[in-house]
Amino acid sequence: MPRKLIRKPAKKIGASPGTLVHTGAKKTEQARIRVIDYSAEKLSEVEIPIAEVGKCCPLRQTDSVSWVNVDGLHEVNVIETLGGCYGLHPLVMEDILSTEQRPKVEAYEDYLFIVMRMLHFDADKNEIKSEQVSLILGPTYVISFQEREGDVFDGVRERIRSGRKRIRASGPDYLAYALLDAVVDSYFHILEKIGDQVELLENELVTDPTPATLQKIHEFKREMILLRKSIWPLREVLSSLHREESALIREATGVFLRDVYDHTIQVVDTVETLRDIIGGQLDLYLSSISNRMNEVMKVLTIMATIFIPLTFVAGIYGMNFEFMPELKWKWSYPVFWLVICLMGGAMVVFFKKKKWL
Amino acid sequence: MPRKLIRKPAKKIGASPGTLVHTGAKKTEQARIRVIDYSAEKLSEVEIPIAEVGKCCPLRQTDSVSWVNVDGLHEVNVIETLGGCYGLHPLVMEDILSTEQRPKVEAYEDYLFIVMRMLHFDADKNEIKSEQVSLILGPTYVISFQEREGDVFDGVRERIRSGRKRIRASGPDYLAYALLDAVVDSYFHILEKIGDQVELLENELVTDPTPATLQKIHEFKREMILLRKSIWPLREVLSSLHREESALIREATGVFLRDVYDHTIQVVDTVETLRDIIGGQLDLYLSSISNRMNEVMKVLTIMATIFIPLTFVAGIYGMNFEFMPELKWKWSYPVFWLVICLMGGAMVVFFKKKKWL
Amino acid sequence: MPRKLIRKPAKKIGASPGTLVHTGAKKTEQARIRVIDYSAEKLSEVEIPIAEVGKCCPLRQTDSVSWVNVDGLHEVNVIETLGGCYGLHPLVMEDILSTEQRPKVEAYEDYLFIVMRMLHFDADKNEIKSEQVSLILGPTYVISFQEREGDVFDGVRERIRSGRKRIRASGPDYLAYALLDAVVDSYFHILEKIGDQVELLENELVTDPTPATLQKIHEFKREMILLRKSIWPLREVLSSLHREESALIREATGVFLRDVYDHTIQVVDTVETLRDIIGGQLDLYLSSISNRMNEVMKVLTIMATIFIPLTFVAGIYGMNFEFMPELKWKWSYPVFWLVICLMGGAMVVFFKKKKWL
Amino acid sequence: MPRKLIRKPAKKIGASPGTLVHTGAKKTEQARIRVIDYSAEKLSEVEIPIAEVGKCCPLRQTDSVSWVNVDGLHEVNVIETLGGCYGLHPLVMEDILSTEQRPKVEAYEDYLFIVMRMLHFDADKNEIKSEQVSLILGPTYVISFQEREGDVFDGVRERIRSGRKRIRASGPDYLAYALLDAVVDSYFHILEKIGDQVELLENELVTDPTPATLQKIHEFKREMILLRKSIWPLREVLSSLHREESALIREATGVFLRDVYDHTIQVVDTVETLRDIIGGQLDLYLSSISNRMNEVMKVLTIMATIFIPLTFVAGIYGMNFEFMPELKWKWSYPVFWLVICLMGGAMVVFFKKKKWL
Amino acid sequence: MPRKLIRKPAKKIGASPGTLVHTGAKKTEQARIRVIDYSAEKLSEVEIPIAEVGKCCPLRQTDSVSWVNVDGLHEVNVIETLGGCYGLHPLVMEDILSTEQRPKVEAYEDYLFIVMRMLHFDADKNEIKSEQVSLILGPTYVISFQEREGDVFDGVRERIRSGRKRIRASGPDYLAYALLDAVVDSYFHILEKIGDQVELLENELVTDPTPATLQKIHEFKREMILLRKSIWPLREVLSSLHREESALIREATGVFLRDVYDHTIQVVDTVETLRDIIGGQLDLYLSSISNRMNEVMKVLTIMATIFIPLTFVAGIYGMNFEFMPELKWKWSYPVFWLVICLMGGAMVVFFKKKKWL
Ligand SMILES: [Mg+2]
Ligand SMILES: [Mg+2]
Ligand SMILES: [Mg+2]
Ligand SMILES: [Mg+2]
Ligand SMILES: [Mg+2]
Ligand SMILES: [Mg+2]
Ligand SMILES: [Mg+2]
Ligand SMILES: [Mg+2]
Ligand SMILES: [Mg+2]
Ligand SMILES: [Mg+2]
Ligand SMILES: [Mg+2]
Ligand SMILES: [Mg+2]
Ligand SMILES: [Mg+2]
Ligand SMILES: [Mg+2]
Ligand SMILES: [Mg+2]
Ligand SMILES: [Mg+2]
Ligand SMILES: [Mg+2]
Ligand SMILES: [Mg+2]
Ligand SMILES: [Mg+2]
Ligand SMILES: [Mg+2]
Ligand SMILES: [Mg+2]
Ligand SMILES: [Mg+2]
Ligand SMILES: [Mg+2]
Ligand SMILES: [Mg+2]
Ligand SMILES: [Mg+2]
Ligand SMILES: [Mg+2]
Ligand SMILES: [Mg+2]
Ligand SMILES: [Mg+2]
Ligand SMILES: [Mg+2]
Ligand SMILES: [Mg+2]
Ligand SMILES: [Mg+2]
Repeated sequence: MPRKLIRKPAKKIGASPGTLVHTGAKKTEQARIRVIDYSAEKLSEVEIPIAEVGKCCPLRQTDSVSWVNVDGLHEVNVIETLGGCYGLHPLVMEDILSTEQRPKVEAYEDYLFIVMRMLHFDADKNEIKSEQVSLILGPTYVISFQEREGDVFDGVRERIRSGRKRIRASGPDYLAYALLDAVVDSYFHILEKIGDQVELLENELVTDPTPATLQKIHEFKREMILLRKSIWPLREVLSSLHREESALIREATGVFLRDVYDHTIQVVDTVETLRDIIGGQLDLYLSSISNRMNEVMKVLTIMATIFIPLTFVAGIYGMNFEFMPELKWKWSYPVFWLVICLMGGAMVVFFKKKKWL
Repeated sequence: MPRKLIRKPAKKIGASPGTLVHTGAKKTEQARIRVIDYSAEKLSEVEIPIAEVGKCCPLRQTDSVSWVNVDGLHEVNVIETLGGCYGLHPLVMEDILSTEQRPKVEAYEDYLFIVMRMLHFDADKNEIKSEQVSLILGPTYVISFQEREGDVFDGVRERIRSGRKRIRASGPDYLAYALLDAVVDSYFHILEKIGDQVELLENELVTDPTPATLQKIHEFKREMILLRKSIWPLREVLSSLHREESALIREATGVFLRDVYDHTIQVVDTVETLRDIIGGQLDLYLSSISNRMNEVMKVLTIMATIFIPLTFVAGIYGMNFEFMPELKWKWSYPVFWLVICLMGGAMVVFFKKKKWL
Repeated sequence: MPRKLIRKPAKKIGASPGTLVHTGAKKTEQARIRVIDYSAEKLSEVEIPIAEVGKCCPLRQTDSVSWVNVDGLHEVNVIETLGGCYGLHPLVMEDILSTEQRPKVEAYEDYLFIVMRMLHFDADKNEIKSEQVSLILGPTYVISFQEREGDVFDGVRERIRSGRKRIRASGPDYLAYALLDAVVDSYFHILEKIGDQVELLENELVTDPTPATLQKIHEFKREMILLRKSIWPLREVLSSLHREESALIREATGVFLRDVYDHTIQVVDTVETLRDIIGGQLDLYLSSISNRMNEVMKVLTIMATIFIPLTFVAGIYGMNFEFMPELKWKWSYPVFWLVICLMGGAMVVFFKKKKWL
Repeated sequence: MPRKLIRKPAKKIGASPGTLVHTGAKKTEQARIRVIDYSAEKLSEVEIPIAEVGKCCPLRQTDSVSWVNVDGLHEVNVIETLGGCYGLHPLVMEDILSTEQRPKVEAYEDYLFIVMRMLHFDADKNEIKSEQVSLILGPTYVISFQEREGDVFDGVRERIRSGRKRIRASGPDYLAYALLDAVVDSYFHILEKIGDQVELLENELVTDPTPATLQKIHEFKREMILLRKSIWPLREVLSSLHREESALIREATGVFLRDVYDHTIQVVDTVETLRDIIGGQLDLYLSSISNRMNEVMKVLTIMATIFIPLTFVAGIYGMNFEFMPELKWKWSYPVFWLVICLMGGAMVVFFKKKKWL
Repeated sequence: MPRKLIRKPAKKIGASPGTLVHTGAKKTEQARIRVIDYSAEKLSEVEIPIAEVGKCCPLRQTDSVSWVNVDGLHEVNVIETLGGCYGLHPLVMEDILSTEQRPKVEAYEDYLFIVMRMLHFDADKNEIKSEQVSLILGPTYVISFQEREGDVFDGVRERIRSGRKRIRASGPDYLAYALLDAVVDSYFHILEKIGDQVELLENELVTDPTPATLQKIHEFKREMILLRKSIWPLREVLSSLHREESALIREATGVFLRDVYDHTIQVVDTVETLRDIIGGQLDLYLSSISNRMNEVMKVLTIMATIFIPLTFVAGIYGMNFEFMPELKWKWSYPVFWLVICLMGGAMVVFFKKKKWL
């Protein structure tokens, strides 16, 4: 559970808005800039060295769709240069750098600014990794900012490269849709993983619940709280994008945005379903603890209730009084055994009746 | 409870929208296409072999109401051919094939696309089976896609065949209504089944609750979570259909859509009521565990509290001290019994006062 | 708890809408039709035999207010005949016969259709009885359908008979209001009854809670779930009636509908308050079980903790070792008693300090 | 906690609306009518005998602000006379007399009708007393109806008497505002009282929780349920008054109504906060019961676990077998003690490790 | 937990609105007035003695941005004088002085009145301190009122002093934004502090939960209830400020207000997340109590169940009957040990099977 609950504040209280400080952990060694520039007919794909970030600026004007992807946010001057030549508002640049944004979309004069959280499951460490992805959607370009290398966009890149696909014939709004769609699809993968683990827990609960089971339930519950915080606001984001009457979003793209909105609702639904199910598992766990406590107490009660009176009887004839006529009788000992067996038997019958045995 | 929590993601992350991959389990051996074509005067009913699916295409133009029903989604080319000649959007075809859709209605230029979940209770296996039903409602046709053979539409088919009924004199919008109505009616049957079982559980709870009872409550709770996920969105679907100002829905059909909307609200109400009742049963179960624990502890406490002091007294006179005057006394033993009986009696009185006996 | 959770489905799945089948239990032996026809000046009150139900038809045209009341729904042809001559939609007739409708109001061309649930407390059997009441409000008539004889409308009948009252000078909309008001007033009586019983339970909880108390709480909780299901939707019904811009509702009646809407909100409020209170009682019950368990355990712990060590000490001097110097000493026995008393006393002090005694 | 949960129904089911029956308890011996009539320049204050209630009627026409206050509702003819000459609707009069109204505001042609609940804390009996206050706000008058003598309006009366205040220069709408404000201010006093007691309970919970603490939590919880029922609807009342575009409310009064609306929200907030806090206290109470049970069980387990085996060992050497070599050995007794001490010591170490000691 | 639950009522019930009484505790010894007056070109910063408060009045007219900050509210005449010359409504002055306001914004003719709660963490006392901050935003001035010296505005002051920043070139609306932003930023710091402590608690819960842990959970829960009460309404405040179409707020400031609105939503989100997490911790705590109780009971049950029967057997051969053949047998004692070991071993096997050992 290495995720922190609360974002580190972006800057000193009262500092100027638009102060560019990278507030997240430095998640990658070396920032990278990759540019894909394409239209229906042509395609170019280059990596631009950090020092020459200015080369990305002319792309603002080209008619082809230009996708500038920046991995790594600790090189503040990269964001500053791009912000400068693409006319980004200081608050947008601040938000790109403060990596605990709530997912949102904001319309500026000639671009849309979209922030969301991208999740991937790290199978090695068995944990969910998340990073902030910020998109700038302009008339002829998309700029994407990520916290570290590695993303869920490889499928999109291949579709661009493979030519003939719809993406090559569409504008930057369709590219932005494709990126959003890839992020939302990745949520399904995460939720499928969690769903499988919750399913396993279900079996553990029924067959052999231990305190470790409780610990797992607690961790899933917490994980769902944090997931929910990332996913819920995305619903609003996509709903407003899909209804957006922006010149930046062509009509034909609307139906695709509705599709990804639809997927987001499904994701939200699934998160809520998982929360309900995990909640039910906690109840079941608590009940089974009580059930087992009951069983433990029954064993104790049965043993104690049968033997304590018998021990008392034996104790009586262990007394050393001089005048105890029974001690001298010939049949005392067999009669003692008879009494003991009758008493024990009566107890057993009593417990059978109570259904404790 | 064999239902999976989370849908299998539709395709690779970032794949092109409209990529046609059947994502559900293959639920039927042999796909089937059945066509019913009718107007007030005439009726034809044929089965079309998979290979000749193209024969369904001319029906798009006929004035009569054409109902094309496809059972089985694993023959992707069937959906592709129909999608092609009926002008379905790639996203619609994708949704038909990904069988864990959230119920929804979407308006396209010349057809409405409706997705919902059809439930039937399999009495043999004592489980609820569900499959996705997708409807395309066009100006003169209805296409329905199901995951496997067998559905709740036989009543509708008989009404069509039997002539004189309103359905023969109405358009495809009325047919779509009839199919929706049959699906919603089937929910009542499912909920009635569950309601009866919950009622039985109620008796079990009052007379003899066991850990198996808890397990059943837990399973019902989970079943309700999943049912709810299928049924809740249908409410929106029918509400928007009923208010829809589409040229595809004649005015006379409006009142029928209101009726089925009404039924959907009743279904939702019932689901919520069942959830409340199952929640109350869990509380009752937990309380009765506590009550029985109390009883167990009382038995133990009473036995131990009565006999432990008596055993101590007997233990005293089992000591081997040389100088213990009582051991020599003639009435020691009867006095001992007297003391024992008084002590025991006092305890009994004490417990009676505390209402533990 | 004789109320069923789930309505019996109205008909076979996929059957034609408007198929007239009475789905409730047959709650009365003999169906009855009673007609009251009145205006400010004149009043006639007759009972019409089932076979001559057609006699009610001309009343549709008379200027006077005609109230046709039908008790018993198993004579389907009565509903069919009335439906025919009053122009009722097949769906309306279907709804009248399926007696587990959710309360609702529906506007048709020349009448309003109102469904609600009427409750009366059967003092003999100590249970709430409920039946569905359907109202048809037309320009000059009100038709009411009940499941069985006996209702809460006698006060309304007397006001009509007694002349001079406002009701005689008003139209059928005012009559419909009066019937709605009587139904809502009856909810207050039911809730008052339940409130009194919940109050009694409160005392039982404080003085002597038993498992039977838990059973009662559970039953009240369930009763409230079902009541709520009947009453909540009525709120919407009256709200929309009160805002309805129907030619069927005169302006002067509006303020009366607002009044009964107001009462409905009060009823809903009260149901919620009772739910909260019953929920609080369950918490209190559970807490008091825990408290008593604590007390039981304390008694056991105190007795066992005091006497187990003492018994051990006595056991030591019951040993038969040849070389145990204490056995020979003269003061051993008195010293033994001294030690025992000191040990017991120390324990008592310890428990006093812990406030267990 | 003597407050009843459910209002006594206003009249027989089906009785005519506007039937004037006083349904509350008769809370005062002698009804009183007090009239204050003022304008910026002049002021008169008189008490009018019940029998001469008609003297209040001419005030309807005077230009000065006339405040008619009626204490005690059992003299139905007072309400009837005033209702007659001020043109009150029968439903308004009915509502004034049925003293369990939900707070509300209703606009009639030439007056506003406002109902609310006035609370005062009776320090002698340590209980909250509540009564219904109904206000009629007309163009030149305010009529207030209370269930009994004594109210929270003395401050308002003094402001009127003392001249120079804003109230003397303003109209009846400002007077109505002042009365509403006094009622809402009184809620703060009540909530402050409850808040102090809840604070005390907090300490009790931490230092020494007893079953009486539970009882108190339960009573507070119930008290909050009832308070909430009185206060929540007032929020709507003031919100609609403040937005009301009535000729009866001058523009300058709007800002004052916004102020009292504001206070009402604060009251509602506080009620919710108290509910949350009391809920948290219940959780804390339950947890501390469990904690103490744990402690009790530990003491028992430790004592039993240490001494039961020791007693067994002593029991062995109390056996009377002829051939038990240990009995004859010289060092048996000291070795016995050694073994006993080692066993006891091992147990203590075991419990220390488990942190039970 | 020194924060009071309920505000002290502002004044006597029924007192005139606008009665100026300072109702909070006097939180500072000496009230202070500091004025910063600036435009893009010039800057003056002076402290004005309480007695000469009138010197602030001419600033209302100057074109430069004038920020009048008042620390300490007990000098009522300061507020009165400022209120007089800046034309503040009596209700505004009353609200400034009653320091338990719910955060709100109110539009008056030529100024906006904003109330909020400023929080700072007092590291020395390990508690959250809060005070009310009221802002008056006029065309050329901002007046801020605080309860005591010390605030979170030092960053803003430095930005003003340092020249060249955007703040110097903007109007009073931007200054108000900057103050709001500083307050909201301070919430992040508070929540980060609490988040860290909750994180620590998480570890404590897993490794070694004690009753003190419960106490801490309870305190955090209560703290969150109070924080939430302060922060939730701010959301509305900023939402309405951001949409406000007031001449007082320039268009360019809108985007900054959206930014701080955004932050407020993040704060609210975080508060809710913390509430959920703390709730989960309480559940975990309760479960781990139950788990440990189970363990305690198992130890007791195992010890008692093994040794009680053995002690009984030993008790039998401690009896003094004359005719007990076993006592004379040569191998009795070894056989006794054999039986004892078999019995004990059987028990151990039994418990192993039950997984209690
Ligand atoms: Mg900032
Ligand atoms: Mg930021
Ligand atoms: Mg990345
Ligand atoms: Mg997708
Ligand atoms: Mg996160
Ligand atoms: Mg789709
Ligand atoms: Mg996709
Ligand atoms: Mg899809
Ligand atoms: Mg099928
Ligand atoms: Mg139906
Ligand atoms: Mg499903
Ligand atoms: Mg139907
Ligand atoms: Mg119907
Ligand atoms: Mg019903
Ligand atoms: Mg009836
Ligand atoms: Mg009524
Ligand atoms: Mg019912
Ligand atoms: Mg009324
Ligand atoms: Mg609970
Ligand atoms: Mg009435
Ligand atoms: Mg009334
Ligand atoms: Mg009074
Ligand atoms: Mg006030
Ligand atoms: Mg009340
Ligand atoms: Mg105020
Ligand atoms: Mg006031
Ligand atoms: Mg105030
Ligand atoms: Mg300060
Ligand atoms: Mg900020
Ligand atoms: Mg506060
Ligand atoms: Mg920002």
